[in-house]
Amino acid sequence: MNRYLGIVGIIAMVFLMNSFENHPFKNSPEENQDNTKLSLGAKTALVPAPVWVIGSYDKNGKPNVMTSAWVGICCSKPPCVMTSIRKATYTFGNIMERKAFSVNIPSEQFAKETAYFGSVSGRDVDKFKVSGLNPVKCDLVDAPYIKEFPIVVECKLVQTLELGSHTMFIGEIMDVKVDKAMLGEKELPDIEKVKPFVFTPGSSNFFGIGEYLGSVSPLTKEVEKK
Amino acid sequence: MNRYLGIVGIIAMVFLMNSFENHPFKNSPEENQDNTKLSLGAKTALVPAPVWVIGSYDKNGKPNVMTSAWVGICCSKPPCVMTSIRKATYTFGNIMERKAFSVNIPSEQFAKETAYFGSVSGRDVDKFKVSGLNPVKCDLVDAPYIKEFPIVVECKLVQTLELGSHTMFIGEIMDVKVDKAMLGEKELPDIEKVKPFVFTPGSSNFFGIGEYLGSVSPLTKEVEKK
Repeated sequence: MNRYLGIVGIIAMVFLMNSFENHPFKNSPEENQDNTKLSLGAKTALVPAPVWVIGSYDKNGKPNVMTSAWVGICCSKPPCVMTSIRKATYTFGNIMERKAFSVNIPSEQFAKETAYFGSVSGRDVDKFKVSGLNPVKCDLVDAPYIKEFPIVVECKLVQTLELGSHTMFIGEIMDVKVDKAMLGEKELPDIEKVKPFVFTPGSSNFFGIGEYLGSVSPLTKEVEKK
Repeated sequence: MNRYLGIVGIIAMVFLMNSFENHPFKNSPEENQDNTKLSLGAKTALVPAPVWVIGSYDKNGKPNVMTSAWVGICCSKPPCVMTSIRKATYTFGNIMERKAFSVNIPSEQFAKETAYFGSVSGRDVDKFKVSGLNPVKCDLVDAPYIKEFPIVVECKLVQTLELGSHTMFIGEIMDVKVDKAMLGEKELPDIEKVKPFVFTPGSSNFFGIGEYLGSVSPLTKEVEKK
């Protein structure tokens, strides 16, 4: 009987030990590495995402802006970008109507305006009036850009694609305009002057840009030398 | 004759003055603001872009990885991402064959491997062997992910779209896996632990993530209170 209880006790101990995820007996060397991964399931928890403000005119010519992080560059020749937008937004109807939009890249100083542009609808408010920022008509497409933002991009709608909750708008870049004070080498925008920021999907926070880590070509050589 | 030379001289002076873009007579007060913009033309000079490493198997089961900055989240339901890839790449054929890919988000410590993965072809080298990183078979799709990277995403190919130099692959996110040590609140990746980085198209530099600037909801209220 004592022996039976002993065996039951040992089995119970083993069960208890296994219930502690990180107890010292269970972990293999591999599991002790930082790379033990947890499955989060099917979600858009990829960090970081860019933050772009999409500019458009409504059918009466009222300028509107909407913040989107479901964005990206998607082709080099012709240069194209994509932004995915829900049908319920005011911007959706505007882009469908005008076949054009602008991409406006904010600097850190416009973090609060950028948050605001993504949180209210142009149906209910005039976002330019409330924020005090100024719309400027694009030179080449039928959309407004934000005068105060350091980088603005004029886009002609070339394709739309239904994906589910969101419709993807693909715009061909007709022109990129950059504040002269924000330019660096080779007449390209200098990220350290522009001070753009990024978004964390899920937690909805903004983070600035940090330190220079290196350039692709010399970094590549470090691996090839190994 | 003297009078004639004088007129020619004045015309020449006006021409010369106009050829200096920022001479003091020409600028209106508006042009003296920081928002005076220079047109760069039609190019992909938008900063910053995310940096993702795309994982795929070739027809013989050899794992390959390729760095792409032409990427983005593009739908919430179903959760989808896009990456645009040139037909000439090894990855292009792999994804067409296997109808799957992984997205691997590097941390700063893998900047050089990430640069390398974007600079050589899997046709010529085994990028895993050279870099010393390890492929792991995805649980739900026919693609490998990088064991050492903090965030990996399993994607099923759902659409392809021809855009010109690049073909867009749209992948439905089947699972996101995150190193346990990189998780923050609400079981979401903590960007300050993950330490991802961004890319500057045109100048091909990597920059880290900087300071927390705020959360969307309280930032929005700052504008609404004004």
